[in-house]
Amino acid sequence: MQIGIIGAGSVGAATAFALMMKGIARKITLVDVNEKKAVAEATDIAHAAPFADGNKIKAGSYSDLKDCSIIVITAGANQKAGETRTDLLERNVKIYADIIPQISRYAAEALLIVATNPVDVMTYVTLKLTGLPASHVIGSGTVLDTARFRTDLGYHLGVSPKSIHANVLGEHGDSEVLCWSNADAGTLPLAALAADSDCPLTDEIKNKIDDDVRNAAYRIIEGKGATCYGIAGAITRICQAITSNEYAILTVSSFHQQVAGINDVCLSLPSVVGKRGIHHVFMPQLNAEEQNLLSASAHKIKELMCQADKML
Amino acid sequence: MQIGIIGAGSVGAATAFALMMKGIARKITLVDVNEKKAVAEATDIAHAAPFADGNKIKAGSYSDLKDCSIIVITAGANQKAGETRTDLLERNVKIYADIIPQISRYAAEALLIVATNPVDVMTYVTLKLTGLPASHVIGSGTVLDTARFRTDLGYHLGVSPKSIHANVLGEHGDSEVLCWSNADAGTLPLAALAADSDCPLTDEIKNKIDDDVRNAAYRIIEGKGATCYGIAGAITRICQAITSNEYAILTVSSFHQQVAGINDVCLSLPSVVGKRGIHHVFMPQLNAEEQNLLSASAHKIKELMCQADKML
Amino acid sequence: MQIGIIGAGSVGAATAFALMMKGIARKITLVDVNEKKAVAEATDIAHAAPFADGNKIKAGSYSDLKDCSIIVITAGANQKAGETRTDLLERNVKIYADIIPQISRYAAEALLIVATNPVDVMTYVTLKLTGLPASHVIGSGTVLDTARFRTDLGYHLGVSPKSIHANVLGEHGDSEVLCWSNADAGTLPLAALAADSDCPLTDEIKNKIDDDVRNAAYRIIEGKGATCYGIAGAITRICQAITSNEYAILTVSSFHQQVAGINDVCLSLPSVVGKRGIHHVFMPQLNAEEQNLLSASAHKIKELMCQADKML
Amino acid sequence: MQIGIIGAGSVGAATAFALMMKGIARKITLVDVNEKKAVAEATDIAHAAPFADGNKIKAGSYSDLKDCSIIVITAGANQKAGETRTDLLERNVKIYADIIPQISRYAAEALLIVATNPVDVMTYVTLKLTGLPASHVIGSGTVLDTARFRTDLGYHLGVSPKSIHANVLGEHGDSEVLCWSNADAGTLPLAALAADSDCPLTDEIKNKIDDDVRNAAYRIIEGKGATCYGIAGAITRICQAITSNEYAILTVSSFHQQVAGINDVCLSLPSVVGKRGIHHVFMPQLNAEEQNLLSASAHKIKELMCQADKML
Repeated sequence: MQIGIIGAGSVGAATAFALMMKGIARKITLVDVNEKKAVAEATDIAHAAPFADGNKIKAGSYSDLKDCSIIVITAGANQKAGETRTDLLERNVKIYADIIPQISRYAAEALLIVATNPVDVMTYVTLKLTGLPASHVIGSGTVLDTARFRTDLGYHLGVSPKSIHANVLGEHGDSEVLCWSNADAGTLPLAALAADSDCPLTDEIKNKIDDDVRNAAYRIIEGKGATCYGIAGAITRICQAITSNEYAILTVSSFHQQVAGINDVCLSLPSVVGKRGIHHVFMPQLNAEEQNLLSASAHKIKELMCQADKML
Repeated sequence: MQIGIIGAGSVGAATAFALMMKGIARKITLVDVNEKKAVAEATDIAHAAPFADGNKIKAGSYSDLKDCSIIVITAGANQKAGETRTDLLERNVKIYADIIPQISRYAAEALLIVATNPVDVMTYVTLKLTGLPASHVIGSGTVLDTARFRTDLGYHLGVSPKSIHANVLGEHGDSEVLCWSNADAGTLPLAALAADSDCPLTDEIKNKIDDDVRNAAYRIIEGKGATCYGIAGAITRICQAITSNEYAILTVSSFHQQVAGINDVCLSLPSVVGKRGIHHVFMPQLNAEEQNLLSASAHKIKELMCQADKML
Repeated sequence: MQIGIIGAGSVGAATAFALMMKGIARKITLVDVNEKKAVAEATDIAHAAPFADGNKIKAGSYSDLKDCSIIVITAGANQKAGETRTDLLERNVKIYADIIPQISRYAAEALLIVATNPVDVMTYVTLKLTGLPASHVIGSGTVLDTARFRTDLGYHLGVSPKSIHANVLGEHGDSEVLCWSNADAGTLPLAALAADSDCPLTDEIKNKIDDDVRNAAYRIIEGKGATCYGIAGAITRICQAITSNEYAILTVSSFHQQVAGINDVCLSLPSVVGKRGIHHVFMPQLNAEEQNLLSASAHKIKELMCQADKML
Repeated sequence: MQIGIIGAGSVGAATAFALMMKGIARKITLVDVNEKKAVAEATDIAHAAPFADGNKIKAGSYSDLKDCSIIVITAGANQKAGETRTDLLERNVKIYADIIPQISRYAAEALLIVATNPVDVMTYVTLKLTGLPASHVIGSGTVLDTARFRTDLGYHLGVSPKSIHANVLGEHGDSEVLCWSNADAGTLPLAALAADSDCPLTDEIKNKIDDDVRNAAYRIIEGKGATCYGIAGAITRICQAITSNEYAILTVSSFHQQVAGINDVCLSLPSVVGKRGIHHVFMPQLNAEEQNLLSASAHKIKELMCQADKML
């Protein structure tokens, strides 16, 4: 299976490297407006190929995407100091207005994975620009935040993150909702497991984990300027669910007709991902507080979506 | 990490092959009373090594186990037509009385994975013969039954078995307990998910799944004479949790001081598995019916354990 | 990518298990005249799926092969005591006359991997029955013998088999040719490397390795009744080269217009394997003795091919 | 197995990420003078762990390295514009004089992998500062250059780089020696294979490949500022050979008593790598021109080693 990646920045390159090391894509095509950068990244990664499963990677142009089953879009600007969120959105909508038609032209059948921020709104923008069915446009959403949540819970409880079911829903951003009430590990509710393990989830610990998950990106950016490996891992995971037609439940972002009282909004809910993209979306059972938080998160995204509508 | 396997029958050989193909053990030592069989299996599997990660496998004797961190015991007789369960137990206790002291002599520090049936009782027998702490003697238990349960649920619900938390507890055998009440997928209770997906878990379907999980081994034996690949997958999974110190929650069998009103009994409960063997065991939340079934299952195993005590 | 396997005997089942554990096929379909056996093997292997990458396996009929890119044919009889090679050939030609048209009907575009013995002749039979181009009909050939040769050399020289280039060519069988003259490890001729390592390749050692490689199957059969894991590893390796479009050089068997003075013969030569099957075949540089042995091997196969022609 | 990485720059971080995605180290400890950077990188990579095999990564100090079997040293300065090679060497020798004693203090038994440039000289510096046997100090050497050489040859010849034996020896740097005369693929000399494939290795093509391999790093640096993924792949490959005790032949750099007429020099030759580090080194068969080039390369390194001696 061939995978295209638009954007050879740190996220696009780390994603290509992860796909290569895991042997998930038979061939990777890296596209960037800065061709020299794309060639340099592809060359650097290609040198690792003989040590992995020997898959191929090349820099290319949009016309080289024609045999891709999946296109990952990482292109876009990052928030500048002093810039408003709306300004950032406007810049990235412009970039997508340029990119998306070229993808549609050469790879109309491909599933699209959107990773540009604000990712929920950009998923919506991609949907509008392509006219694709909602199941074919997959935002990376809170897949990464969910992984962070499980990792923190795992460290606290002495259990592998892979044995924990606990999701972050809503916006990939400040209004995201950590769902504590329905979380479990090995079928045991998290609170019961925590009590049993003598690692109770006190309010203090829950606040610390909430803060850590919600602000992880800011802290990493403070320390290294940007995040790349975590999100590359998340995108690689989504690709793997598609290429192996896995029907995995992942908290990707997609378009929903109604969530928590808000109509026509893009955000993350537990979704079944396989070869046809998003096969099904589940509405989780939340307590009243979580329900309100999800509603607020949906409302916030919806406002940005309305702003994006005017930019298109 | 080195892994020893006692017993070069179909289960031992398939396990060695799986460990090899997954690259989990740096070196595998295969021990069998029938040395010719052990050499033939090791040779056959060694020929696959250059196509995998190139790990090593050799037939050997007990003294070759000295650097093993894990010993998998698959040796033992299968139930003959007309033979009672007690007769089978007696034969396997005799075999273990011969095998276990030799393992203790050369690999006293190794974690032991017991796969011989009746596996819960043989876990207990191993514990008594070695004097090891309960955390070091791990029965393969219902790890396989849990996988069967999740596979059946996954097919019915259109969700990857890996995204489902649903356990089979108690005996690895006829009295095993499928836990429906606390099962979930992606934090959604199974019943809610089933309704949402238009694949309701009617009594008819639950009975069919229960029958399929409980009698899977019988049907496979009818069709091919024995089971080997499923159990090899389960043992490989346990080994992986140990070698990567994963803290994975697996339904392995081990010795418990009290379960469902029965004292000092070996059976499967959700357990955290890592480099020190079983790091922690959780008592799941069951409904009254499941609690009764687990008690009955524990009672049945306890009786066999008492019989085994007299044979030792 | 979907892979079909014809024949649910020990080779077919071990191959399906290896493909599953390595995550190479998204979906495996197992076909056997003994449907009950196919269902039992597929069920046994499916239970290991949640422990691997979660790929799917099902028993099916020929019509279920329609989306397969690769079909592995392991069906066929084994040589009975007292039976001549020609008798065996006759039985397997009859089986193929029944099987191959059904494959052609439902999966005309698939690459075929032939593993039934005598494999070189059955590769020819498959070619005739299908009318496919030679590049699409791939005999497992001496891929396994080559692995055995490299494994033995690796043990003797203290070097990973994966770092050794040394091939077995010609027939997969008694007349196979171990190519010593052009073997190397890390660009160093084998003889020089052996001298440098103080592990000289004396005639005695070369004879021992030759005997071990040539008679490995006989010895394994003596110890366990049949070989399955080594050949399953070899078939899995060929599948991987195809699914990842690897252009790997493997000693598969295929039809050649001229080899060592013999026209139109199927046997193993170093071949480039990728998504289109056999992309290219190389004629290796042999010394006079090896050239003569290869000619004799080709001659022997050619005779069997002529016999097969009369049976079709 | 635990692996420590000194230096959380782009090479150290990409190496940690690759080790994580491949599941090679059970636990990774990242050490950097800039603690904030180390924490940020470790956190970013840890978020990818639940998507991989769930291994652990943490930022730490030298005392946290005590259970590491392998320590990878990527710390060090890069060449500044206008800076001489000797100036660079002086700066990195100073950094090592600070780092190495702390490693020796806490992980005296670990194998050391040196990746700081000029890597051959820094391998020598590490050897002197630690007093370890030569087999325990492994420079990443020309492992990456060899991969580049094989990748370029593979593209030209239509053969997987993994099926090609062709080495780059000597210095990891401008004087490195591409060994054409003994290169082969699948036992066929490269020139014969090239002729057979109608892709002759003309002087023009050989010059282009030579230039591409020798100057790859410069071109990547021009396009993206630094190289990281290729070298991370190479280091990961060396770690894998050690952790799986593979006896792989890799062109790592180490200390040799005599090479091409130069005594006591560190450079890359084909070496057998396993759990004890470098188990054996082979002197390849070169033609006169290559022999001269290797001698010149050794001479150049030796001069830098003498300069380093004065700095220690």
